[in-house]
Amino acid sequence: MSNGNDTVNTSNGNGNGATETWLILRRLGIDTFQEPVVFMRADCHVCRAEGFAAQSRVRVIVGERSIIATLNVVIGDLLAKHQAGVSEAAWRALGAEEGDVVHVEHMEPLESFSHVRAKVYGHALNSGQLNAIIHDISENRYSSVEMAAFITACADERMSIDEILSLTTAMVDAGSRLSWPHDIVVDKHCVGGLPGNRTTPIVVAIVAACGLIIPKTSSRAITSPAGTADTMETLTEVSLSLDDMRRVVGREGGCIVWGGSMNLSPADDILIRVERPLDFDSEGQMVASVLSKKLSAGSTHLVVDIPVGPTAKVRSAVMADSLALRLTQVGSALGLTVRVRQTDGTQPIGRGIGPSLEALDVLAVLQNHPAAPADLAEHALRLAADVLELGGKSAAGDGMRLAREVLRDGRAWRKFQAICEAQGGLREPPSAKHHRVFVARTAGIISSIDSRRLSRIAKLAGAPGTMAAGLELHVQLQQAVEADQPLFTLHAGTPGELAYAANYANSREDVIRVEPQS
Amino acid sequence: MSNGNDTVNTSNGNGNGATETWLILRRLGIDTFQEPVVFMRADCHVCRAEGFAAQSRVRVIVGERSIIATLNVVIGDLLAKHQAGVSEAAWRALGAEEGDVVHVEHMEPLESFSHVRAKVYGHALNSGQLNAIIHDISENRYSSVEMAAFITACADERMSIDEILSLTTAMVDAGSRLSWPHDIVVDKHCVGGLPGNRTTPIVVAIVAACGLIIPKTSSRAITSPAGTADTMETLTEVSLSLDDMRRVVGREGGCIVWGGSMNLSPADDILIRVERPLDFDSEGQMVASVLSKKLSAGSTHLVVDIPVGPTAKVRSAVMADSLALRLTQVGSALGLTVRVRQTDGTQPIGRGIGPSLEALDVLAVLQNHPAAPADLAEHALRLAADVLELGGKSAAGDGMRLAREVLRDGRAWRKFQAICEAQGGLREPPSAKHHRVFVARTAGIISSIDSRRLSRIAKLAGAPGTMAAGLELHVQLQQAVEADQPLFTLHAGTPGELAYAANYANSREDVIRVEPQS
Repeated sequence: MSNGNDTVNTSNGNGNGATETWLILRRLGIDTFQEPVVFMRADCHVCRAEGFAAQSRVRVIVGERSIIATLNVVIGDLLAKHQAGVSEAAWRALGAEEGDVVHVEHMEPLESFSHVRAKVYGHALNSGQLNAIIHDISENRYSSVEMAAFITACADERMSIDEILSLTTAMVDAGSRLSWPHDIVVDKHCVGGLPGNRTTPIVVAIVAACGLIIPKTSSRAITSPAGTADTMETLTEVSLSLDDMRRVVGREGGCIVWGGSMNLSPADDILIRVERPLDFDSEGQMVASVLSKKLSAGSTHLVVDIPVGPTAKVRSAVMADSLALRLTQVGSALGLTVRVRQTDGTQPIGRGIGPSLEALDVLAVLQNHPAAPADLAEHALRLAADVLELGGKSAAGDGMRLAREVLRDGRAWRKFQAICEAQGGLREPPSAKHHRVFVARTAGIISSIDSRRLSRIAKLAGAPGTMAAGLELHVQLQQAVEADQPLFTLHAGTPGELAYAANYANSREDVIRVEPQS
Repeated sequence: MSNGNDTVNTSNGNGNGATETWLILRRLGIDTFQEPVVFMRADCHVCRAEGFAAQSRVRVIVGERSIIATLNVVIGDLLAKHQAGVSEAAWRALGAEEGDVVHVEHMEPLESFSHVRAKVYGHALNSGQLNAIIHDISENRYSSVEMAAFITACADERMSIDEILSLTTAMVDAGSRLSWPHDIVVDKHCVGGLPGNRTTPIVVAIVAACGLIIPKTSSRAITSPAGTADTMETLTEVSLSLDDMRRVVGREGGCIVWGGSMNLSPADDILIRVERPLDFDSEGQMVASVLSKKLSAGSTHLVVDIPVGPTAKVRSAVMADSLALRLTQVGSALGLTVRVRQTDGTQPIGRGIGPSLEALDVLAVLQNHPAAPADLAEHALRLAADVLELGGKSAAGDGMRLAREVLRDGRAWRKFQAICEAQGGLREPPSAKHHRVFVARTAGIISSIDSRRLSRIAKLAGAPGTMAAGLELHVQLQQAVEADQPLFTLHAGTPGELAYAANYANSREDVIRVEPQS
């Protein structure tokens, strides 16, 4: 098939209309967070010539840089006819300046989405197809709606081990990869879903104090009220450059930094933006997300903590076994030794839920404070012991003794302070202005604690956006309480958030269930 | 659990901060098409008090009306601190006027999305759960991302017959339902995917000319270059009020109007906005979509055309059988007699692809023009015959003879003109300014025609947004062609679209395959 001659003489000199697609860029200061947006007048020459309409997906080019954006059409005089605006994220990505010339054209067809469609219809994807999808996602070519379809199509164990392997490799290949001058580089990871389970800072402190290399990159919250990076940010700097991270690890043997600034597995960071509002992620993508981050960070030995409980992310031992199997299989195929520990996920760990409140728990444990939450300390020690054994610092069965000794004699706390100093200085977590105490209506025994609902309440109170927001839990399962005894305290930065979280808490009687004693 | 006393004295007099959430509305003239958007300054008192951030889902209230919207945060001086803007769709939905007082608060948690999550993880949904989902969708409470997850979770036959039944009923219940003073009300539907398959106007004209009642509501394009409503809009008014539709049907026995203005199955109309960019829909949702629209329109007897072909929406007889079974089962359970016909979907039908070009084919058939596309005429006659037999206007086996007679003697054309006059007057379809002819590189036999790629080319050329855009096909399967013989002609409204569609067509050698003759 070949291109015949035009039957009308168009004014289209170079054959693709490119000379007509220029506008002048104006900063509108609109923050759309998720998807890059370009604003253009419906009656501008570019919209008319190219046939753009609201929600068209277009390529926006400024100088050498270009991005894919969604078009919002402007009808009034917000913009002049020769102007185009872009959202803040797009502005940053384009490195734009006021008055720059901007070129807008049709987005090339997104061929890799045909693979997503195939997956929706139950077809297995090969590594070339998954590579194409992940490459396009990491280049920000997928809309939120398209990513939501990909995430959903892969959910509920719809990915085979081969697919997960390909997805993991594709995610590693799409980003940077760190390397370290050590044979053994250890790491730990918790498959979230359990509020307050903030063991990482404690584990890193113990493990680094014992001489292992643990360059820990952590994430911010995906669907939870706090990620480790959010919690650590209340204590020190976490947005380190790669060079600064290397310097910290070189000096202290360990660090606890935000992985998002490292460009490790960037596709994962983008997918997370959609997983967050959906509030679910798939087993296959969970495995790929965890392992791609660790492989990119240069780890060789990894301990994974899977809390299991009816309201945790992993709800049964069967699910945990399946996840553990996939993590070890895929890890092993890619040169990463993985040890999985299933832990008790029937209730939150520690007292705080939310960045600052969790940081206070961590400090109490590291400082051997008498009132420190014992469950958090024990949990962190168990995981530190696993890492010490896996990394060859103690014989099998002897890790726990070593970990406990290093915590108790203050070496862990000194190491933690040294790491924070190296990252930019240790600081005090902020505290919230507005509080409300929730009490037991009647005397009885605490028979269940709904971790998911507690997380939601902490998020409604403003966590993790507001560092000090969240809640402080005053009871544990099986504990006896009197009528009017405090169950938890809400912390919020504004009256509106306090009221909103409180209204939700009041409308859900079963968040913390008190069974009358017979 | 009960609400204890606040530990600090907040200024929050009425307990929910409502008195602080008012702003003054300003029309920004930004058309986001899909999701309602509200624009507010990050530093306004509402964002600060409520803890809103970019992409927060909020309830926007003006007087008695309220909508759910996504927040875009404004950083600069686009808005004053006491102002809020809303997108055009939101402006219309709110019935807003410049200077109105607007109240913005946290969106209540979307409880029904937990059912979507359950579906993602393979759990069957009951009618109460599907009702809750569809109710929330029809009230515009779902974001595009949430709808994409729902659509994907239901794709690939993941819905049971019970779920489809519940979904259909929920969709009917969420909207208006028409009733007619007739025992038999017929309808026809084509499960799309075949470009140019524009039989509806011809079938309605024949069937109404024979005295059956056929109040046809059609849709606009979902993923195709033209829907029946798009095609009919090039010939007459299709956005009729319910009263006007009743008047037309009362006078002529039939009509061909756009169903979107009738509020029949509104959840379906909203889901379609997400299905369109995803370019797939699920079997269960296809069944619910078709049947809910027909039940809402008051039909009692329905003929469904399922074109089957490798590049049609339904690719195999097995898929078609499964779909046919579900359509008849669910229809029968809900009081709708359904007859399904599987037809040849191996190539487009007629010559035109795109609203105007398809309308020209329809006119040629109705006017018995010697050059009218015979395949379109035969296909329409076959379906009209089925409707006549199902509706009791002719004995089994005699429908084809009657349909042919009514088309040939001009009664169908006269009825079509009368229907168009009653709908607002018959008009001439617009024609495109820019054309390009694509020719065969070599002599040979047409061995395959890729309907999906032809549709994509027609859409890139501007269909259905530009009525006159699309393409005109000059060949059929198995036809012999000479080198340089025209295969198809592109029609576009702008040089940019023409160039873009032509580039895509040139990059895909196999859209129309010519096998050299041996």
